[in-house]
Amino acid sequence: MYKKINRLMLLSMVSLFGFACAPKNFIPEGNVTKEEIRQLAADAIPARDAIMKFWLDRCEDKEFGGFLTNFDAEGKDLSTPEKYLNTQCRFIWTFSNLIRRGGGEEYERLAKQGVDFLLKYFWDEKYDGFYWKSMRDGSTLDQGKIVYGESFAIYALSEYYLATKDPRGLEYASKTFDALQKYCADTHYGGYREYFNRDWTPETPGFGGGDRKTLDSHMHLMEAFTVLYEASQSELHQRKLKEVIDLIMDKMIDHKRGSGLNQFDLSWTSVPALSLKRTWNAERFGEQPAQPTQTTSYGHNTELVWLLSRALEIGGFDKEPYKATMKQLLDHAIKNGIDWEFGGVYRDGLRETGEAIVFEKEFWQTSEILVGMLDGYQTFGDEVYIKAFVNVWNFSQKFMVVKGLGEWRTLCDREGNILDGNIGNPWKVSYHTGRSAMEVVDRLAEIIK
Amino acid sequence: MYKKINRLMLLSMVSLFGFACAPKNFIPEGNVTKEEIRQLAADAIPARDAIMKFWLDRCEDKEFGGFLTNFDAEGKDLSTPEKYLNTQCRFIWTFSNLIRRGGGEEYERLAKQGVDFLLKYFWDEKYDGFYWKSMRDGSTLDQGKIVYGESFAIYALSEYYLATKDPRGLEYASKTFDALQKYCADTHYGGYREYFNRDWTPETPGFGGGDRKTLDSHMHLMEAFTVLYEASQSELHQRKLKEVIDLIMDKMIDHKRGSGLNQFDLSWTSVPALSLKRTWNAERFGEQPAQPTQTTSYGHNTELVWLLSRALEIGGFDKEPYKATMKQLLDHAIKNGIDWEFGGVYRDGLRETGEAIVFEKEFWQTSEILVGMLDGYQTFGDEVYIKAFVNVWNFSQKFMVVKGLGEWRTLCDREGNILDGNIGNPWKVSYHTGRSAMEVVDRLAEIIK
Repeated sequence: MYKKINRLMLLSMVSLFGFACAPKNFIPEGNVTKEEIRQLAADAIPARDAIMKFWLDRCEDKEFGGFLTNFDAEGKDLSTPEKYLNTQCRFIWTFSNLIRRGGGEEYERLAKQGVDFLLKYFWDEKYDGFYWKSMRDGSTLDQGKIVYGESFAIYALSEYYLATKDPRGLEYASKTFDALQKYCADTHYGGYREYFNRDWTPETPGFGGGDRKTLDSHMHLMEAFTVLYEASQSELHQRKLKEVIDLIMDKMIDHKRGSGLNQFDLSWTSVPALSLKRTWNAERFGEQPAQPTQTTSYGHNTELVWLLSRALEIGGFDKEPYKATMKQLLDHAIKNGIDWEFGGVYRDGLRETGEAIVFEKEFWQTSEILVGMLDGYQTFGDEVYIKAFVNVWNFSQKFMVVKGLGEWRTLCDREGNILDGNIGNPWKVSYHTGRSAMEVVDRLAEIIK
Repeated sequence: MYKKINRLMLLSMVSLFGFACAPKNFIPEGNVTKEEIRQLAADAIPARDAIMKFWLDRCEDKEFGGFLTNFDAEGKDLSTPEKYLNTQCRFIWTFSNLIRRGGGEEYERLAKQGVDFLLKYFWDEKYDGFYWKSMRDGSTLDQGKIVYGESFAIYALSEYYLATKDPRGLEYASKTFDALQKYCADTHYGGYREYFNRDWTPETPGFGGGDRKTLDSHMHLMEAFTVLYEASQSELHQRKLKEVIDLIMDKMIDHKRGSGLNQFDLSWTSVPALSLKRTWNAERFGEQPAQPTQTTSYGHNTELVWLLSRALEIGGFDKEPYKATMKQLLDHAIKNGIDWEFGGVYRDGLRETGEAIVFEKEFWQTSEILVGMLDGYQTFGDEVYIKAFVNVWNFSQKFMVVKGLGEWRTLCDREGNILDGNIGNPWKVSYHTGRSAMEVVDRLAEIIK
């Protein structure tokens, strides 16, 4: 089924990678043995701890509070002129999650000072909701309300409440949830509008995003409502979690091809993707149609699988009706997205055919596919998922991890050569890599039990 | 096009009605003349004033505050053991609307004491929203949250604010609106769930209504959001008004047949109507499927037309895209619902064919079709609408109006014989008849200008 690595290819890989690795270890051909899994479980622990240590040593903004996000390839502070809602929240989530896993007082102090900064500078007392961006010192920069960012506020503050019982966590997570229901829910077509001005009037259409809906934001709402419900145990939060789950299933998956759709108009017609302002792509590539306009992300699709799996478990919903779609998404990534030659996972594929068109290996897709494949293995027991996991794990350890620092670089080319070596930026901090590392440790421990 | 009244029928009408009326005046055959409209405009004023006087003289509950609703065929107090949210609000709306039309201090005092009672006994401080029913003295009876009733709270309190500038009006209308967005909006399928327990957990399915959506409640939300937006001028209220308008157009109209649908499951599949608890039908007929299960109401459909017309005007939306549907609904009622033999409008028709199946003449359909037909005449200028208006107007004045009291009885049979002579009940107060009377006066005055 999968392209076999022949002797010639192995030679070319060795020369491309610039080092000699045993192909058997790097991309598993035969079944992964119990012993190999046990070894991976052992390796995953120091890998996880190194990521946490990286951020623990340098992310706190000791001058202004909150967190620094920008670090170069050696982990040196690049200064952080602007603070983004999503990454401030992702740090709060990380340290809160570590507390829940038994972490100590230092994590608690870090999470708390992050929440203090967030509530002081990002919360909008007049209109509710969190602003999108501030200057490093917390002063005003972009007071827009972006549902993607708001979802991370709910996610982080709910996790923080579960970790610390600080009532501010659940209070502000709930207030943000309420604001989304009031201002963003689309009572005509369902789902949520995503881009707003400070006063929650919709942003301009097109580049402003005011007339777009995305799988991305709705998936992160599902992720956020999962932990909100875990924290509140409220019927309302459970109900809205179920609604967004079923909406994603109904409208945002191409069930014929087994891949996630991307952008939609307000009435859920799938439309060619635009690069929207206040997204990482627009900040990297500017205002333009995505090229090509109809893509799917293997990493995103498998992230969806495990977040859905978690949402169904926490929500207390039957997983059975969702399994076929989960398997489809995983198998689509296995077939089209996993690089069975050079290892890792491709960045993007064509929606129509599924075939890969951007062969780069990026940190977040790589992180998420690790968890997605373990989730698939745990749910379905198919050997191919653990093989895919081992493939991507080995690639990530060899090429994504910055030696001596533990955290990952941002972007490599197909063969693992560095394209963007920076370790931290306004979009990349501890969330994908750190969460993946924690999930991998937990899941491997369960698997070898 | 319409069945002509021949000599024989006229004789039988005369015998059935028990009095001799000139058929030419009663059901117009030729065009309605300017002079006739002028006469109707003059007649409509004392008709309106009599309705207002009826309630002014007896609706105030001088013992406990709020309003009495139950009056017999002679207008005598039947005592009012229970107070319903919808009818308490309908009185507030009526007196507030009269204030806006230049009414005096007595209306203001009545509206204000109604609001005092409502906020004191019906508002839920703990969970927000208004309870469904209280005992006469305001003590607890049914703390359920019914969207139909909440919509009248928004409608009444917004009108009250516009009339008096008492800030409590807009404050509690907005808080109720917010509660609907938070607890009732269905973020999967769009629209609103309608039946809830006190804490806004959904009611049981079936008779409880927890799994149903209806055109009725959504139409009344449209009506309520129209006045809320008029009062607040908020972009949010305008946006949600537009959403519910377009939702009604998309999901709740049978565009092929030109009639309104009735009940739906949560995913907007039109389903056979059940009689739901906390509706007038269930209180009259008990828990049972409606017989037959797929009906349409000519009065409701034309009420929808003029409420839509008003919503589009107040909302500042282009009426053009909606006109074809408005005309369809009117013409469906003209063709199937207007009784061109005995006058008035039938209660219900079959959805499939449009043909009438319940020939009774009820107060609310009769009231609403009057406004709907005048609105149609004002929008489209077609002679048939004013003819239908005159037909139903004459029927209402001859058979529905209680002589010497001015208000209407509840129900007549096809020929105008009394079936339910009571003038007030927990569902029937001043709203349909009084509002219709006010609208008719205003609209006829505009038409003869």
